[in-house]
Amino acid sequence: MREWEQELADSVNTALRARQLTRVRELLIDHDADQVVRLLEREDAADRAVMYRLLDRDRALDVFELLNAGMRAELFQGLRDEDVTHVFEQLDPDDRAQLVDELPAGVAQKLMSGLSARERELTAPVLGYSKGSIGRHMSTEYVRLLPHLTLGDALSHVRHRGRSAETVYLLPVTDEQRRVRGVVGLRELILGSPDVLVSEVMVEPKFAHATDDAELAAREMVDAGLLAVPVADSEDRLVGVLTVDDASRILEQAEDEDAARQGASEPLGRPYLATPVLGIVRSRVVWLLVLAVSALLTVQVLGAFEATLEQVTTLALFIPLLTGTAGNTGSQAATTVTRALALGEVTKRDILVVAWREVRVGLILGSLLGALGLTLGTAVFGIGLGAVIGLTLVAICTLAATVGGAMPILARAVRADPAVFSTPFISTFCDATSLIIYFVMATWILQL
Amino acid sequence: MREWEQELADSVNTALRARQLTRVRELLIDHDADQVVRLLEREDAADRAVMYRLLDRDRALDVFELLNAGMRAELFQGLRDEDVTHVFEQLDPDDRAQLVDELPAGVAQKLMSGLSARERELTAPVLGYSKGSIGRHMSTEYVRLLPHLTLGDALSHVRHRGRSAETVYLLPVTDEQRRVRGVVGLRELILGSPDVLVSEVMVEPKFAHATDDAELAAREMVDAGLLAVPVADSEDRLVGVLTVDDASRILEQAEDEDAARQGASEPLGRPYLATPVLGIVRSRVVWLLVLAVSALLTVQVLGAFEATLEQVTTLALFIPLLTGTAGNTGSQAATTVTRALALGEVTKRDILVVAWREVRVGLILGSLLGALGLTLGTAVFGIGLGAVIGLTLVAICTLAATVGGAMPILARAVRADPAVFSTPFISTFCDATSLIIYFVMATWILQL
Repeated sequence: MREWEQELADSVNTALRARQLTRVRELLIDHDADQVVRLLEREDAADRAVMYRLLDRDRALDVFELLNAGMRAELFQGLRDEDVTHVFEQLDPDDRAQLVDELPAGVAQKLMSGLSARERELTAPVLGYSKGSIGRHMSTEYVRLLPHLTLGDALSHVRHRGRSAETVYLLPVTDEQRRVRGVVGLRELILGSPDVLVSEVMVEPKFAHATDDAELAAREMVDAGLLAVPVADSEDRLVGVLTVDDASRILEQAEDEDAARQGASEPLGRPYLATPVLGIVRSRVVWLLVLAVSALLTVQVLGAFEATLEQVTTLALFIPLLTGTAGNTGSQAATTVTRALALGEVTKRDILVVAWREVRVGLILGSLLGALGLTLGTAVFGIGLGAVIGLTLVAICTLAATVGGAMPILARAVRADPAVFSTPFISTFCDATSLIIYFVMATWILQL
Repeated sequence: MREWEQELADSVNTALRARQLTRVRELLIDHDADQVVRLLEREDAADRAVMYRLLDRDRALDVFELLNAGMRAELFQGLRDEDVTHVFEQLDPDDRAQLVDELPAGVAQKLMSGLSARERELTAPVLGYSKGSIGRHMSTEYVRLLPHLTLGDALSHVRHRGRSAETVYLLPVTDEQRRVRGVVGLRELILGSPDVLVSEVMVEPKFAHATDDAELAAREMVDAGLLAVPVADSEDRLVGVLTVDDASRILEQAEDEDAARQGASEPLGRPYLATPVLGIVRSRVVWLLVLAVSALLTVQVLGAFEATLEQVTTLALFIPLLTGTAGNTGSQAATTVTRALALGEVTKRDILVVAWREVRVGLILGSLLGALGLTLGTAVFGIGLGAVIGLTLVAICTLAATVGGAMPILARAVRADPAVFSTPFISTFCDATSLIIYFVMATWILQL
């Protein structure tokens, strides 16, 4: 958000507070849909509905399409029935399907049955695929070509059918049985000679299957720099097209989730300022409780060594330093590997390769820190405590890096979210094990 | 990466180990450029160069364009001079400019002077903008239209000039002085009637300035669902076009950075498996040292309370639980706000709004955890210690959430990376302050 947008946001907010709706409308009128969206995202649900109703119909639809799924459903509940019916009819089939997921079943059913036959027909295939699959995000409004058309005829076909399609920049080529045979970019259609056949310029299609994991397919598509990919059913028959803007949305949502879970909370599902305080509490409280309860383990561990602590109270001074360092080393490894998994750079079969890399990384880091700990510790507290701290650092860094690197992959292998099993759990695990290692080292070296 | 790709990767690796280069070439030949990239990303620099040299020239170029900046420069150093010259000449100007940044100055200069006059001319404007600006990522090969053309003439113009352009799907419209007046999609050009004027179908351009921050502009473009935006100089004259694939790359790199820094390390700049072990160590060691040294603060704090600890050793048992909870609460807030900043949902002017939200969130979370701590603590250790733990939890959760929420915004305000100043530093800060609060509470309530 730029400086002037921020000022605009302040003016809108002031006008909303004062209920000067004509002023709000004036402020909104000159701005693009995406700017209006950024303004909506800063207000609470009630004000959002007020602002939205001030937009004229066409722009309202553009704005609606740029909102995220959670906000769309919430907004729907604040609109009049006729507006709801209008927006629902005009939405793209994939957006409509996602909205159906978010709405109460009764409302969704009523809206679906109010659709025109054609729109219902376009939406049904999308709803047939499970959440999290590409099928749920594909567009069913596309223009397909047949291989034996000339480019000239193909271009006329696009002219004739292209108006309602989600994209005409990538054109799937199928045989008569709708089996995907290739793709042609609109660019090739324009630049090629009109009497050349589609089959001569089409390229091997990079297509996704409708049941494929949405995040994986979207990532591959964006990595390959494609504007769209055809989506096929299990028999390679064309059922839709996934466009780059839908792919970007899928990835942004996945990254929201990863970022939140690495910070030990659930994604808010809507922009920060648009989320009520209790909504934020809800996104964090379960995590915080689970982590606090599992941290009771550290109380147990320390309780077991209470006698040692009473003998040498100085040992307590290093507890936060050691658990903190273990936690940092573990989350460094976990974050790196979680990101590598998300980008498809590492798969579950790489677990041993990753673990062996992290053993070496951890050992090197631990030796560096350990040498420092030994030197400083010896200088201030004598060789005994210095040795305990140094050796503990070597051991916990090696262990933390290895576990931190392996854990996200293990999580993926059991089909859990790597981000969940990584940073937050690893720091609890590291806290407990580093305490055990520390006190075992201490009793052994200091002969307590 | 899919199952079969993983198997392919294993076969390639085996063949490379056995130096069966013909076999490697056979394995690579049938796959798309993006699949070859995923295979390259799993090997070390030397094997990567070997594999790359086995590709035929055209495909080699496609592959090169999909590699990230760090890997491109590294690969360049493993190729023969003639290949280097060929690839450098064929690259898009923006990719070439980024490569120049990564190469040793001498090498870069030699390559630039070897370019054809036209390619040098296309690259120069990109190199004129600073790193991190949109200008550095824009494409200077575009097709622009004049407003008084008919759509029919415009289409012929695209046919004539479109072959070498980075995109023809978005066509900037300028006046004779190259000032941006609007944009037309190729779709509108095709679907409209040939005798309509460009000025009648063009829409208000959403354009970026070449000096704009690359991440911000890319985010806005992707959020608005655009395939490209015109890039203009300070006088609104067209200098290039930013395409959605470049925008996605910019965002992916920004997210790599955020993810790494939230996990207290530097981004690797290349895929995990392609990074040598020492490279991984390098990305983590400075952070780990800085955090360990700042954790010496906790040793100081505990040292100050050593007498109290000797009186009531039981107090030590709760240290990791309390510092851990403070760290978790702080990083929950920091992660959420850092992500909101990255998405442009929150700006530096929102600091008070955010802080006030986090005070309330922290207080609610702290009260819940505090009640639990009070109950459990009293049950096991008596009312005195129970009260200390309960009240400490309320105080540290409130403080940690507030500081965690405000810190990333403060970092942004002083132009530092919010991710750096958020999670890692916050956990050290939380460790130290929660210890102080804990021991002050303890001396006060237990009257030590």
